[in-house]
Amino acid sequence: MAKDKIRRPRAETPKGFRDYFGAEVTARAAMLRRIAEVYHAYGFDALETSGVETVEALGKFLPDVDRPNEGVFAWQEDVEGSKPGDWLALRYDLTAPLARVYAQHRNDLPTPYRRYAMGPVWRNEKPGPGRFRQFYQCDADTVGAPSVAADAEICAMLADTLEAVGISRGDYIVRVNSRKVLNGVMEVAGVLDPSDPEKFAAERGIVLRAIDKLDRLGTEGVRMLLGEGRRDESGDFTKGAGLGAEQAEVVMGFMEARRDTAEATLARLRELVGGSAMGAEGVEELATIAALLDAQGMGSDRVVIDPSVVRGLGYYTGPVFEAELTFEILDEKGRPRQFGSVAGGGRYDDLVKRFTGQAVPATGVSIGVDRLLAALAAKGRGEAEAQGPVVVTVMDRDRMADYQAMASELRAAGIRAEVYLGNPKNFGNQMKYADRRGSPVAVIEGGDEKERGVVQIKDLILGAQIAKDATLEEWKDRPSQIEVPRDELVARVRGMIEGQSS
Amino acid sequence: MAKDKIRRPRAETPKGFRDYFGAEVTARAAMLRRIAEVYHAYGFDALETSGVETVEALGKFLPDVDRPNEGVFAWQEDVEGSKPGDWLALRYDLTAPLARVYAQHRNDLPTPYRRYAMGPVWRNEKPGPGRFRQFYQCDADTVGAPSVAADAEICAMLADTLEAVGISRGDYIVRVNSRKVLNGVMEVAGVLDPSDPEKFAAERGIVLRAIDKLDRLGTEGVRMLLGEGRRDESGDFTKGAGLGAEQAEVVMGFMEARRDTAEATLARLRELVGGSAMGAEGVEELATIAALLDAQGMGSDRVVIDPSVVRGLGYYTGPVFEAELTFEILDEKGRPRQFGSVAGGGRYDDLVKRFTGQAVPATGVSIGVDRLLAALAAKGRGEAEAQGPVVVTVMDRDRMADYQAMASELRAAGIRAEVYLGNPKNFGNQMKYADRRGSPVAVIEGGDEKERGVVQIKDLILGAQIAKDATLEEWKDRPSQIEVPRDELVARVRGMIEGQSS
Repeated sequence: MAKDKIRRPRAETPKGFRDYFGAEVTARAAMLRRIAEVYHAYGFDALETSGVETVEALGKFLPDVDRPNEGVFAWQEDVEGSKPGDWLALRYDLTAPLARVYAQHRNDLPTPYRRYAMGPVWRNEKPGPGRFRQFYQCDADTVGAPSVAADAEICAMLADTLEAVGISRGDYIVRVNSRKVLNGVMEVAGVLDPSDPEKFAAERGIVLRAIDKLDRLGTEGVRMLLGEGRRDESGDFTKGAGLGAEQAEVVMGFMEARRDTAEATLARLRELVGGSAMGAEGVEELATIAALLDAQGMGSDRVVIDPSVVRGLGYYTGPVFEAELTFEILDEKGRPRQFGSVAGGGRYDDLVKRFTGQAVPATGVSIGVDRLLAALAAKGRGEAEAQGPVVVTVMDRDRMADYQAMASELRAAGIRAEVYLGNPKNFGNQMKYADRRGSPVAVIEGGDEKERGVVQIKDLILGAQIAKDATLEEWKDRPSQIEVPRDELVARVRGMIEGQSS
Repeated sequence: MAKDKIRRPRAETPKGFRDYFGAEVTARAAMLRRIAEVYHAYGFDALETSGVETVEALGKFLPDVDRPNEGVFAWQEDVEGSKPGDWLALRYDLTAPLARVYAQHRNDLPTPYRRYAMGPVWRNEKPGPGRFRQFYQCDADTVGAPSVAADAEICAMLADTLEAVGISRGDYIVRVNSRKVLNGVMEVAGVLDPSDPEKFAAERGIVLRAIDKLDRLGTEGVRMLLGEGRRDESGDFTKGAGLGAEQAEVVMGFMEARRDTAEATLARLRELVGGSAMGAEGVEELATIAALLDAQGMGSDRVVIDPSVVRGLGYYTGPVFEAELTFEILDEKGRPRQFGSVAGGGRYDDLVKRFTGQAVPATGVSIGVDRLLAALAAKGRGEAEAQGPVVVTVMDRDRMADYQAMASELRAAGIRAEVYLGNPKNFGNQMKYADRRGSPVAVIEGGDEKERGVVQIKDLILGAQIAKDATLEEWKDRPSQIEVPRDELVARVRGMIEGQSS
């Protein structure tokens, strides 16, 4: 290679980022719109913060405790004079900015403040298959409401939201649990000391993460992580919480405490938390949530009390919840598996305190929009691909004005339409273009048609069918291309398109 | 101050960033949706790229040549082993990512590729009043179409878009010009040498920027910038292009070449470009554009040929266009002034070439969504503030389930509703909250009402009016609070809300 060869920039997204085209964009926009409608009906107001925050405001609340070293995209502001510039970063979720907004504007905001937010967040993580460094979140939170009625409301709203975006009842379940109950159980098992909350902190963290892996590892895997530890298929060893067999059994008993009815589950939990005051408080909160959901007609086919849900995040302090899709899809190896979690949340009472020194109760949920879109696509209930435009072909490049007038008339009648704007010389290329665009109809007007006051309209959907499998009779009966008077263009194109969907 | 005082993080957006609340968010979303509908009708497909690109891919195409030193937000990826990390940056517009996408995916995209994109962009600039470092752009571009029919289409679409978002015909004008004509005029004036395009480059840049300031500086100011230079009110001196008086007159003549009809303007331009081949080509392109717009019914009340439009960007190579709102608003000092530009664009044929080595013709427009929203608000045509929720008040905190059931019934009937979730002790606070939320109706059910099977519903809009200016008779005739049977709750609340808007 010659040294002086011009080095061209690579036309590539940065690693772990991707582009979204056409229906990928519009399907997501439509889903966000539907979610916003439900949130709005529940009294939530929109909030949009910028993508950039100060690192100081974001804090160290990176939510995934499994990967504490994974970070944010950050940079330092230019120095001005002798003052060092602030460190700025892209937001990694929508909760940290909410805490900042509430602290900043609390005197002007209603209390409680119900807000929803939707938009991209960024994580400076190693990208992997299907794992991107920018993705959408869609959150609803209530700040300043201490009552678990706020948690119950969020769970009900989550169930309504899933149905609004097209997940049928029976294909999802919202599961609710309480960190307080879990703490009570850990007290009973001796993994938590209520008189010294810092004691056993590491062990508690391991217990939390072990339970959170129930779906992935099964009960045996979790049991190993509660005890000495677990070696995975690749040979990597994960150190366990070091619980004794009896202690582990208490925790396992908690995870498996779900019964057929909320009443039975609550009764079982009361047994398990024994004399723990915090545990008892948690159980009564769950009982309140169950009663409130019942009053709103949220049956156990929609929301259930399920002690196996713990959510990984360290900052939850009370109720936690998760929405799971219960239908099976085929994984990359063709094996059926449950689709799994698409949303989660819980109560976190300390995020605003960082700024103001005062604890502010808050609870909220985050929906993984991209996973939900994938789920709908897997069920064949994705947004239909938008119809391509009617393509007005160019037979005579000196008559572009005539062609533009046709496209303009079609659009005025509500029909998506455009004139072919590539090089018109090769008519075959024009038809290939129309095909690639998914056009329903092509319009053709050469000099001869112009003189006779007619146009040709070609049914591209029928044309493709005929080319594929029509008999000669069918071909004759339903020609895919017809000649129509110029002044009937709009009506005849509309008729042709309507015929395609019937 | 004690040294060991805990330093709390500041609850602030970074300098030059801001938050958007409620109707600010939903009004923008509604506008983007309407714009997308028009773009879609014209055959454009959605594209969403990520906020982050490699600096290499973005290149040095920062669009505002007036501030070449203003930059992007950039940072370097973590080093992996011995390999230095890529430099990444936030996108500063939606055109540079489009060039990257087209170069990357050109074999899979239709040609021509019509795409629209909407989303935030970031500029690492000094923030100022009303000038933010993150703002929305909303672009439509056609890549791979050499014909000026593509430019004409964009101009027509821009006019249709402005009307679709609520700008009346007569309140805007789309102005079209051609860089080729300007180049022709500069050839005639001796500011451009067609045999040596690099000669006079600096002078040409100054001429371009001087013309672009016509709105702000008037003809005398521009004349000074074409000559020796101009000293502004603060005493700062801007060096001029150094044109002689005769040369400057040629350029001024070009800027003022607009006549009453497109034909007359084109005739005047033909005179001005004299023997310049490039100038003549530009004039014929403008003539084609005028004819195409005419065929689509775009009269001179919507789109005009206007040589005073040049657009600041260095990369335009052919037609340039700008949408201006023509009505007056009051500036910060209360003086009437024209609202000015809300969208602009033009033909740029070299952006993709950076990647592929092959010139790819492209043309497009960018709408300043935030400015357009401000314009609609100034005209009193902004999105109506969304109605607040019906607030179900809490008289008895043990009956939250009853209250949630009411809110649930109201929502099921399509009425935005919520239960008060703050501390219910002080009923006055509940009413203040409802007031702050802009609630139309409050629902009240104490123990007494519960027993009698009724609820109180309070008309908060009427209540506020009565409190303000009602006579005693009106007060008696239309009590703002009425008692209704519990099972008529939904119907009576709906009736009350409907009564408010009549």
